[in-house]
Amino acid sequence: MTVQETVDRYLQIWNQRDAAARRAGVNALFTETCKYTDPLAAVAGRDGIDGFIAAVQQQFAGVRFVLAGGVDSHHDVARFTWHARAEGRDEPVAIGFDVAVLDGGRIQQVVGFLDKAPA
Amino acid sequence: MTVQETVDRYLQIWNQRDAAARRAGVNALFTETCKYTDPLAAVAGRDGIDGFIAAVQQQFAGVRFVLAGGVDSHHDVARFTWHARAEGRDEPVAIGFDVAVLDGGRIQQVVGFLDKAPA
Repeated sequence: MTVQETVDRYLQIWNQRDAAARRAGVNALFTETCKYTDPLAAVAGRDGIDGFIAAVQQQFAGVRFVLAGGVDSHHDVARFTWHARAEGRDEPVAIGFDVAVLDGGRIQQVVGFLDKAPA
Repeated sequence: MTVQETVDRYLQIWNQRDAAARRAGVNALFTETCKYTDPLAAVAGRDGIDGFIAAVQQQFAGVRFVLAGGVDSHHDVARFTWHARAEGRDEPVAIGFDVAVLDGGRIQQVVGFLDKAPA
């Protein structure tokens, strides 16, 4: 799996509203000791990450996360910008920037920042 | 020490050309198990980081690293952009973007990217 594919699958998980499929995606994509930190949450482990994604999905129903621009990667790290898009809205409702650290092809750590906070 | 101060001290270390003072700065600022990854190097531990900084200083004599813009931080993470400036040159000779992960006030990990690679 290339880094680009890993990032694509990461965003797919954010858009996966079926709880069992989302959890299977988290298990496949993240290491057991993974960490996730963004302005809204600092969680660890697959339970922590899956739970946080579920909470965000519930809070922002109908929002989809899409890659904005390219994935810049080297060694086992990558950076990319994403847009949160809502039906019928031209502007993204939120814009974020993430750095992902991989380990053996799985995501070990995500450090996220917001360039546009959700209203 | 605030996150802003930590980032300031981090860049001071990059500009510290006295080997003993630089190493003392690395020891004070980084955890023992720290990791550093940028497009040019992936190193670990204080020896690894100090050695890489020394090599960059030797390769880019006379270059100074300065913070460009603000430090965006939350939880134990921060992102910031830096410029590498050379005497007599108006434009930065390199522009980089780093994410730092802190642990107990020390830097545990730096993930760096280049927005303008050195010529």
